Amino acid sequence: MKAYGIAIHGGAGTVSRAKMTKWKAEAYKETLKRAYSMAYQTLHKGGSSIDAVIEAIVILEDSYLFNAGKGSVYTHLGTHEMDAAVMEGKKLKAGAVASVGYVKNPIKLAHTVMTKTKHVLISGEQATEFAKDHNLEIESKEYFYDEFRYKQWQKALMNDKVQLDHDEDGQKFGTVGAVALDKKGNLASGTSTGGMVNKKYGRIGDTPLIGIGTYANNDSCAISCTGHGEFFIRAAVAYDISARMMYNKQSLQEASNEVIHKELPALGGRGGLIGIDKHGHIVMPFNTKGMYRGLKSSKNEEFVGIFE
Amino acid sequence: MKAYGIAIHGGAGTVSRAKMTKWKAEAYKETLKRAYSMAYQTLHKGGSSIDAVIEAIVILEDSYLFNAGKGSVYTHLGTHEMDAAVMEGKKLKAGAVASVGYVKNPIKLAHTVMTKTKHVLISGEQATEFAKDHNLEIESKEYFYDEFRYKQWQKALMNDKVQLDHDEDGQKFGTVGAVALDKKGNLASGTSTGGMVNKKYGRIGDTPLIGIGTYANNDSCAISCTGHGEFFIRAAVAYDISARMMYNKQSLQEASNEVIHKELPALGGRGGLIGIDKHGHIVMPFNTKGMYRGLKSSKNEEFVGIFE
Repeated sequence: MKAYGIAIHGGAGTVSRAKMTKWKAEAYKETLKRAYSMAYQTLHKGGSSIDAVIEAIVILEDSYLFNAGKGSVYTHLGTHEMDAAVMEGKKLKAGAVASVGYVKNPIKLAHTVMTKTKHVLISGEQATEFAKDHNLEIESKEYFYDEFRYKQWQKALMNDKVQLDHDEDGQKFGTVGAVALDKKGNLASGTSTGGMVNKKYGRIGDTPLIGIGTYANNDSCAISCTGHGEFFIRAAVAYDISARMMYNKQSLQEASNEVIHKELPALGGRGGLIGIDKHGHIVMPFNTKGMYRGLKSSKNEEFVGIFE
Repeated sequence: MKAYGIAIHGGAGTVSRAKMTKWKAEAYKETLKRAYSMAYQTLHKGGSSIDAVIEAIVILEDSYLFNAGKGSVYTHLGTHEMDAAVMEGKKLKAGAVASVGYVKNPIKLAHTVMTKTKHVLISGEQATEFAKDHNLEIESKEYFYDEFRYKQWQKALMNDKVQLDHDEDGQKFGTVGAVALDKKGNLASGTSTGGMVNKKYGRIGDTPLIGIGTYANNDSCAISCTGHGEFFIRAAVAYDISARMMYNKQSLQEASNEVIHKELPALGGRGGLIGIDKHGHIVMPFNTKGMYRGLKSSKNEEFVGIFE
């Protein structure tokens, strides 16, 4: 039987074990488990890896726990600017959105860009208009309101500090993502984020950039990244792992470990990623104190965790 | 003596030889020559590759001939949305802007993002605000007005067609870029574009994406791409060439030929690129009928051309 499986993340960061109460950890784990379990069922029934990836990410976007969709942080102007990307490994098709507001599920919007347009990346208010034109769910400002996020923003505003969500006191992390391999041997990946707290100037991170934060290729692997986006961009992380596998004959594990534990730290970059190869091998390296993550595969593997 | 040199492009496309009058070809060649000559002088005097790259691109942005800066095409909404990126190969620092309006030289803005912020990519109206905050030149709508461009947009609007500048009748091409190696052995690259005629939804192409349309690494090469951006994104073109050199031990020429003449056509992608490696070898492959291009190096090489 051909292997299949799903891995997901809810962001990497420097959350401290001390500040993570038991019930909070359980809430995160329960949501992660629900997301990968649903996606795994889809794969088990013969569904596609791209559908499984989107299904898992929608669950994480709809949770207030993660910095994506509903749980997105506030920008400097008090708005929400979300980024997302999806890619499928068979024909290397991809879709992505940057700086969209009010769209309930940016990952669905990215998928719509992939399937309904000739573009890969669209952005800003016009991308929100595109979402409306394609009957995607739009939510009010209230939907995205969250007391913790709001206070986090106010605090950052007072200090005039642009920050990653996980620079904060560790209560909430940034970015969600999923990678999957289906029974047909097709790989897919997706990533979604609410960006940086108090971010200015329409900053775009690595999440919506194909080959950087998100990449899938049936000949190598599917990757979804989380961390300090600027460093991931400069290191072209997702494509670099694929290139090491294709040109350097490294395994997914060797390639991803070198990038996360050598290349990125050399630049000063912190974060992690999840990856799956065509044989169903799953990796989840990170160079931070923790990464919200989970996986389930046809090899009877199942795991959900936060810390090392 | 260590080699140094500069290569530039003014876009790849399907211009037809028949429609290229002698004086038009001369106007293009004269501007290209002025751009690489200025940049070469900078390198010759010991200036940095990043300064040479910006100098060349500013000249091309200031010309009405190319689809970048002054010569940018019209979006669906009748505005100009410009993208640009720069990268230096020593410390892998990069800066980029997407969908900015009214900024005279988007390449200078990208450089300012690289040198004055912790970000790599900023976008939209807020990026224009950033330009004002940093005293970059802002121009009026009239500055960007051009009768040919305006009619081109009106025609596309009537046909409801989003198009690359070079889908048009070949009078003007899209995108400008430069790559350089300086006496210190530092590589740099930059790219700037006015995007697609009648483009909608805040579409972003490959130009401002580090690792895709623009990349530089002292260990491998500096690359600037031009062509149908969506395909360049899916193939992660610029980083792929660097990866082939580093992991697959291919030369710049082998790597860039494979990408432009095999990988991209397999996806259906048209375009070209310019590249320079740490030894000063310059390549300029394209799979279109022509590419505006020029080069000058310390090896007594000098060339300016449009067709094959």
